[in-house]
Amino acid sequence: MADEGKRSRLYLELDLNKDGKQTGFLRVPHSVHRSAYGWIPIPIACIKNGDGPRVLLQAGNHGDEWEGQVALGRLIREIEPARVKGRIIILPSANFPASLAGMRTSPIDDGNLNRTFPGDPDGTVTQQIAFFIEHVLLAQSDFGFDFHSGGSSLTYIPSTLARRSVDPAQTEKVVALMKAFGAPISYLGAALQGADRTFTAAAHRHGVTCMGTELGGGGQVTPAVLKVAEDGIRRILAHLGVYRVDVPPAPPTRLLTVAGDDYYVYAPEGGVFEPLAELGDEVKSGQPAGRIHFNDTPWREPAVASFRHDGLVICKRVPGRTERGDCLFHLGSDLAAI
Amino acid sequence: MADEGKRSRLYLELDLNKDGKQTGFLRVPHSVHRSAYGWIPIPIACIKNGDGPRVLLQAGNHGDEWEGQVALGRLIREIEPARVKGRIIILPSANFPASLAGMRTSPIDDGNLNRTFPGDPDGTVTQQIAFFIEHVLLAQSDFGFDFHSGGSSLTYIPSTLARRSVDPAQTEKVVALMKAFGAPISYLGAALQGADRTFTAAAHRHGVTCMGTELGGGGQVTPAVLKVAEDGIRRILAHLGVYRVDVPPAPPTRLLTVAGDDYYVYAPEGGVFEPLAELGDEVKSGQPAGRIHFNDTPWREPAVASFRHDGLVICKRVPGRTERGDCLFHLGSDLAAI
Amino acid sequence: MADEGKRSRLYLELDLNKDGKQTGFLRVPHSVHRSAYGWIPIPIACIKNGDGPRVLLQAGNHGDEWEGQVALGRLIREIEPARVKGRIIILPSANFPASLAGMRTSPIDDGNLNRTFPGDPDGTVTQQIAFFIEHVLLAQSDFGFDFHSGGSSLTYIPSTLARRSVDPAQTEKVVALMKAFGAPISYLGAALQGADRTFTAAAHRHGVTCMGTELGGGGQVTPAVLKVAEDGIRRILAHLGVYRVDVPPAPPTRLLTVAGDDYYVYAPEGGVFEPLAELGDEVKSGQPAGRIHFNDTPWREPAVASFRHDGLVICKRVPGRTERGDCLFHLGSDLAAI
Amino acid sequence: MADEGKRSRLYLELDLNKDGKQTGFLRVPHSVHRSAYGWIPIPIACIKNGDGPRVLLQAGNHGDEWEGQVALGRLIREIEPARVKGRIIILPSANFPASLAGMRTSPIDDGNLNRTFPGDPDGTVTQQIAFFIEHVLLAQSDFGFDFHSGGSSLTYIPSTLARRSVDPAQTEKVVALMKAFGAPISYLGAALQGADRTFTAAAHRHGVTCMGTELGGGGQVTPAVLKVAEDGIRRILAHLGVYRVDVPPAPPTRLLTVAGDDYYVYAPEGGVFEPLAELGDEVKSGQPAGRIHFNDTPWREPAVASFRHDGLVICKRVPGRTERGDCLFHLGSDLAAI
Amino acid sequence: MADEGKRSRLYLELDLNKDGKQTGFLRVPHSVHRSAYGWIPIPIACIKNGDGPRVLLQAGNHGDEWEGQVALGRLIREIEPARVKGRIIILPSANFPASLAGMRTSPIDDGNLNRTFPGDPDGTVTQQIAFFIEHVLLAQSDFGFDFHSGGSSLTYIPSTLARRSVDPAQTEKVVALMKAFGAPISYLGAALQGADRTFTAAAHRHGVTCMGTELGGGGQVTPAVLKVAEDGIRRILAHLGVYRVDVPPAPPTRLLTVAGDDYYVYAPEGGVFEPLAELGDEVKSGQPAGRIHFNDTPWREPAVASFRHDGLVICKRVPGRTERGDCLFHLGSDLAAI
Amino acid sequence: MADEGKRSRLYLELDLNKDGKQTGFLRVPHSVHRSAYGWIPIPIACIKNGDGPRVLLQAGNHGDEWEGQVALGRLIREIEPARVKGRIIILPSANFPASLAGMRTSPIDDGNLNRTFPGDPDGTVTQQIAFFIEHVLLAQSDFGFDFHSGGSSLTYIPSTLARRSVDPAQTEKVVALMKAFGAPISYLGAALQGADRTFTAAAHRHGVTCMGTELGGGGQVTPAVLKVAEDGIRRILAHLGVYRVDVPPAPPTRLLTVAGDDYYVYAPEGGVFEPLAELGDEVKSGQPAGRIHFNDTPWREPAVASFRHDGLVICKRVPGRTERGDCLFHLGSDLAAI
Repeated sequence: MADEGKRSRLYLELDLNKDGKQTGFLRVPHSVHRSAYGWIPIPIACIKNGDGPRVLLQAGNHGDEWEGQVALGRLIREIEPARVKGRIIILPSANFPASLAGMRTSPIDDGNLNRTFPGDPDGTVTQQIAFFIEHVLLAQSDFGFDFHSGGSSLTYIPSTLARRSVDPAQTEKVVALMKAFGAPISYLGAALQGADRTFTAAAHRHGVTCMGTELGGGGQVTPAVLKVAEDGIRRILAHLGVYRVDVPPAPPTRLLTVAGDDYYVYAPEGGVFEPLAELGDEVKSGQPAGRIHFNDTPWREPAVASFRHDGLVICKRVPGRTERGDCLFHLGSDLAAI
Repeated sequence: MADEGKRSRLYLELDLNKDGKQTGFLRVPHSVHRSAYGWIPIPIACIKNGDGPRVLLQAGNHGDEWEGQVALGRLIREIEPARVKGRIIILPSANFPASLAGMRTSPIDDGNLNRTFPGDPDGTVTQQIAFFIEHVLLAQSDFGFDFHSGGSSLTYIPSTLARRSVDPAQTEKVVALMKAFGAPISYLGAALQGADRTFTAAAHRHGVTCMGTELGGGGQVTPAVLKVAEDGIRRILAHLGVYRVDVPPAPPTRLLTVAGDDYYVYAPEGGVFEPLAELGDEVKSGQPAGRIHFNDTPWREPAVASFRHDGLVICKRVPGRTERGDCLFHLGSDLAAI
Repeated sequence: MADEGKRSRLYLELDLNKDGKQTGFLRVPHSVHRSAYGWIPIPIACIKNGDGPRVLLQAGNHGDEWEGQVALGRLIREIEPARVKGRIIILPSANFPASLAGMRTSPIDDGNLNRTFPGDPDGTVTQQIAFFIEHVLLAQSDFGFDFHSGGSSLTYIPSTLARRSVDPAQTEKVVALMKAFGAPISYLGAALQGADRTFTAAAHRHGVTCMGTELGGGGQVTPAVLKVAEDGIRRILAHLGVYRVDVPPAPPTRLLTVAGDDYYVYAPEGGVFEPLAELGDEVKSGQPAGRIHFNDTPWREPAVASFRHDGLVICKRVPGRTERGDCLFHLGSDLAAI
Repeated sequence: MADEGKRSRLYLELDLNKDGKQTGFLRVPHSVHRSAYGWIPIPIACIKNGDGPRVLLQAGNHGDEWEGQVALGRLIREIEPARVKGRIIILPSANFPASLAGMRTSPIDDGNLNRTFPGDPDGTVTQQIAFFIEHVLLAQSDFGFDFHSGGSSLTYIPSTLARRSVDPAQTEKVVALMKAFGAPISYLGAALQGADRTFTAAAHRHGVTCMGTELGGGGQVTPAVLKVAEDGIRRILAHLGVYRVDVPPAPPTRLLTVAGDDYYVYAPEGGVFEPLAELGDEVKSGQPAGRIHFNDTPWREPAVASFRHDGLVICKRVPGRTERGDCLFHLGSDLAAI
Repeated sequence: MADEGKRSRLYLELDLNKDGKQTGFLRVPHSVHRSAYGWIPIPIACIKNGDGPRVLLQAGNHGDEWEGQVALGRLIREIEPARVKGRIIILPSANFPASLAGMRTSPIDDGNLNRTFPGDPDGTVTQQIAFFIEHVLLAQSDFGFDFHSGGSSLTYIPSTLARRSVDPAQTEKVVALMKAFGAPISYLGAALQGADRTFTAAAHRHGVTCMGTELGGGGQVTPAVLKVAEDGIRRILAHLGVYRVDVPPAPPTRLLTVAGDDYYVYAPEGGVFEPLAELGDEVKSGQPAGRIHFNDTPWREPAVASFRHDGLVICKRVPGRTERGDCLFHLGSDLAAI
Repeated sequence: MADEGKRSRLYLELDLNKDGKQTGFLRVPHSVHRSAYGWIPIPIACIKNGDGPRVLLQAGNHGDEWEGQVALGRLIREIEPARVKGRIIILPSANFPASLAGMRTSPIDDGNLNRTFPGDPDGTVTQQIAFFIEHVLLAQSDFGFDFHSGGSSLTYIPSTLARRSVDPAQTEKVVALMKAFGAPISYLGAALQGADRTFTAAAHRHGVTCMGTELGGGGQVTPAVLKVAEDGIRRILAHLGVYRVDVPPAPPTRLLTVAGDDYYVYAPEGGVFEPLAELGDEVKSGQPAGRIHFNDTPWREPAVASFRHDGLVICKRVPGRTERGDCLFHLGSDLAAI
């Protein structure tokens, strides 16, 4: 790796090797006009108790994906070290400047953290955060979880997702985690969005078993989706044996795969998006997916975008205002067998 | 009125006294760096056929409230003058600069059109639009409809709303319109948000019978809410006899009233909003309404906001990121009798 | 007038009743974060020598119209009081914040000075400037000249222009000034762009004889147009007897009128503007005026805008990037007789 | 007054007629994209106990003048109703959006609150705040205090100031307050900066006895200046009999007057400001006051600005970067007799 | 090359190996707040018919250089595959975000595409575009043409330009292309502006024969310059035998060279630029080139910039507002012999 | 070094090997919308006379640290080549775009020059400047001085500082320079803020003897601190024998060291900063350092930050408005022996 030999400039207030519950900040030096020697305070917690699995729980990779952030914040407050065996590091708002602003990306550098791995210790704030997560936190973890949702622009059926491995044992391991989490759907696939620049890719580079989620979205929190998240997180921690906790058994998850770019529907023009399908619909190839209305010339017929495959609607665009090239829908396909 | 004697500087491409269907632009002169003699093109349509009720249909008063804009655009395309008796003026994106930007307010002058009536012919772009709507369009209408929804920050149970009049005959008239529209709920009340600066207030100043809607929101279009809007609009036009159209009969609407400011719940602090109730819930006074989580210090207990009255949840905040003073919920109360 | 009784808050460093040449600043109080008690320094000059006509020369009404600003600056430097009879006030960059920024409008308040008269002594910076010009400078002038050009978005055949008066003697007076100036063309007309909010309207409110120019444009200075400006300005001052100066005799000017809005051609869509006519062309009704190319989908046929009248092309849009509603061309028509 | 008959749209959470200590928010409705029904929460406190003087204490009129804000916050926390006789309303951050941003003016509308009185209930946020302060708070006060300092751009010798009244009894009353406050200097004068648009002017319009301060500045808090503020505030409250509190006796204050605009020194050019005098210096007419260095061409000799009168330096510009027209210094002159 | 082994993340909708005319988009993944899975749609066309020269035609390298963009759009619409022998790839708006905004550089990342080669597949949007053009499009082309003009800040005599090669045969080849194009002037030279980061440098790295243009400028389209562009483009395609098309014979081109930095004239100060020479003038060393007027202090004598060599004025700055260091003019010198 | 083989794209107007005094610009090519071929003019001077020490004097590394910029400008104006022996290069505003804007960092690219070394000749403007300073100016210097101060956010006791070397002779050399400069305090230490990306680090990479200063701050110039700077600079030049100049003898300097991060105090929350100590105070571990007041809820008790070590207060935050993580204070400790 080109980064070998470089060291993170971030300072962590916690000692990751100390037993007990610690909370504090990961400090990102940020020397700017309004503060020459200041730092950005990214909240982080570490709950450790003896030996056991080393687990990293992360949310807020995109700042406007709230479900995981709320769930992990609650976990920090309620978890007792005595119920832990091993170590749980919780980073609830990984791209903290984005989270504070309620944005997908950082207002400081426009950085999309999940397109920034492996990061750069001398780069922008977002690149420095990515470098620390990959080279410090993942480098000393056995399991990594990254709790995404659809954010401000998309909404998902609550899902877990992971890369399909060439090693069937590894695939079995993540499918077991998916079943433990118990989201309505789960999908396995090759890397699609973001490829080698994601947390998932970083985890794989360090041999960390990794699972992600797409919990809901629309830039909001809903009680129903939050419950999926909170139950699921507790169940995977119990499943790994790192946290003793009572939690209802997992509902079944439907196993899917996400095939290639043809399973995404994109806006053919800019305008106002009227969806013609909903999350959970089983659609057919050729079926109209949405209309783009022209609010500058409403007497003009809207443009129509269609599905190009059969599949299950697992993701839908939320905001009405749309530009050419925006993703409107994305389909999942049942996974024949595991 | 202080504006007496002043005239709008806007130019309307259509002749509102001509029979047939016309579409074109309301031109707002806008002399700026990039265009010294340019104008802003607000789309508008007029479908007239002989004598009959003069109806103004407006949406896009707030630019990110899409349901009415989509529905009125479709109406422009499909309506045939032969089926009209009277005149229907359709202004689908009243604050057009806001609509084009997908914003509640205008990116040109930050203007909130529905807090700007009666406007000013020498003022900002938004003030000039308000002046034209009130002094030209409403001044020659019998009925005025303003199709709002929750926009980017709120979501509503699809509703119609109107002011309760001291004249029972007038109240009966708008309740008949509400029943014709057939939204799940309808509410009557004193002016609340915006008071004398709204389209509704402007309509009242000109003796125009007026009804509004709050259709859905979240800055998006959904098929279910759009259907409520499109059926409802056709039914009120049929009800007034201005448009001959086949439309399924109206479902019943539940009549409510919106009481004072105590029926609104506001954020007690800034942070991430977790709602503890959903649209349609019947809640009790004292019941927790939502939590505000502190994503900068997630180990801190969240703040809790509670309902201060019994009531039906008719409106809920959408975005997770919240500041102190944001409206989180708003309740409706059954109207004893009409 | 509603402003009666109000007084300007601006402070003028010069004494307009003192003989000799004075230069200095018109101070606009501007209490802002970076300077609590600061003021904006608008340069101004006064050259006075005994009694005689009181003339106000103004440029930079729009900050990116440079020809008059350069010509008036030179006049300030070269004029000697001994050659003056009466008073010449020179305000070369009337909307100085706009001029400093190279913008049509003020970067402080987006104010378009020539749409702001009669101004407001308690209003924005631009409104305060307008108030001072109208209520202090014009109020004590006999003649007012406002040197415009096309600015950044338009280019003109060098022209003089004035309102046609109902009083033939007054019209004769301005036509004599036009002939003295000697621009290639001159036009008389009713107020069109900006109506009662322009310098011209302000001058008329105060009984000041007023002439304007449209000298060239494109946001630039060219030697040829600058010469038209500099010779013309000297000739009108000599014509009025306020400045003794040698200047070559005026070339003839072609007298035109600008008829209504139909003589303007506007962009029917947004895109890239390809003009199909040039300044000075005599065009026919129905002739194509320009194409709007779609650079987002270049395989689509461009939209075409046509002239709707015969006429002389006196004004053309400059920038390629164009929005619907931008003025592309504007025609003049020969004035039958004066 | 033109505003007669208009009513503020702001909502005050406190009941100003209730005994005891209340704290809460003055709500400014602010319907914007991110919050359709939100309000801006301006903190306010009311401590009342029976009858007695009605006093309004205000700071944060300019958001970056911190000394008064910190002092009034402390007063809110420590004051006990039992020690009060009458009513003390405390508005520590009057232009709260400016205070939150650490700016002189509001980031919402660029409003300078102290150039905005009497405000407008239908205007911008800052205009609405001004209207409420003048028409609600001052309208029911006997004494009004407005705690300014130099803010980010200026620094002052800690001072109290007031208008000189034509009524000697009234002047005596404010001089007694000045002596009670005990700042190193105090000055009386005609209205200078801001004239009829200030809090002081508003107070005078309502017959309220009014005193202001200029406490320090530089956009910072220092222990020494804060002590002047805190002691002074307690002493004037004790002096008025509205608050029983132990406080050391007042040091003497030197009485000055601020003469006309000639006593201010302004930057003759833009560049880097090097002061040649300090606060407290007694300077002579003609003495160099400061240099403006040209950091773009440092080989050029700096411009020099000089004092045009003898006097005491009571105010000095802080930031190095300076534009033509910025106030660099301002002098006080001893008041012959009171 | 350091980039070896890296692959572009862009997706091209077209199959460059397929015969016929295809139009569509080059998709640049752009995961941002408003669209998590969106892409930027850069229009592109490919017209292929059997074997023959592989030609890349590019414009919009700078987004505000319109002449080539309009000409290439027309070529896409009119070209018929049957008249083609080989392959013509047309990328009319290479830096599409800049073109859409009418800017030289990209509004997304401020990227100047022609200072960005060889680009970076993991970099900013502009760097990703550069990488794709160099490593995908140029890597499979025989000829590359890059149609520039002066853009918003400069204007040129319509010209073609190319690097002088050490290989006379290669120089002969590009001179033949210049003669075929038939612009009024052509110049050969060493790389000047941008050096190894331009499209030209990228073409050379891949052994592609390359010619550029500077067609006109001022941020506008004129009929005369557009005709030079459209005729010239057709003639070079006919010259290469890749497109059978009737086009009038080429007018002669004057061969020039552009010598070193001394042949450029730069603004000695900021202010308003008055040119003292025009395009096409033959000037002498020492001759005044332009004045910089001080619009903040118009009584001050303007600064003068002079030519430092004899030469032909081939390029001139357009906008009046100028800063120290801006290029005002640039001269060409006759090429002794080829 | 990875940069080997790369060359700066900047052009220096001066010849550094020529005797005499030269002033002019270091040109940074900057091809942007408003100027296609423009450059940024960084002022620089070179005074050379025969052989002798080669000294680089730099200020304006951070644009809002004015003391050194003013002092070096004066030095450029007054120094006579005949009094020089060797070469003095003076770069008074190294990050010139930041200096012109009065900002710590560059408004062009947000670059903090002193966190950017060794820079990049193909990078942002700030990276290009850093590369030139390190690879051209430092590469041919024997001594390098970088005159910092606290800038807008901090204020310092006037100090000199340098890295402690492992070589006692080298340490002795810089201590001698410190004593020659004669600031009230001087400190030696390991690299703290900015580590290997500072001017100091760059100097060390090139074997240049290097000393810095922290002169004062608060974004202002004061006569007292400026005198420290001007005397000190002359004394070090005299000490090195490169400039013959009369200057009063140096006052003693107190030698300190700056220990680790524990000697800094940071804001525990955002709010308004009230310092509880002043520059020059000797404080004790555990002593309260400052309060953070909550201006949004002033009834809440402020947060308190304390010193964690005994020491001398050498640096203090200036602005009232503070965010969590801002440096409030920093302590020095007496250096046992040298």
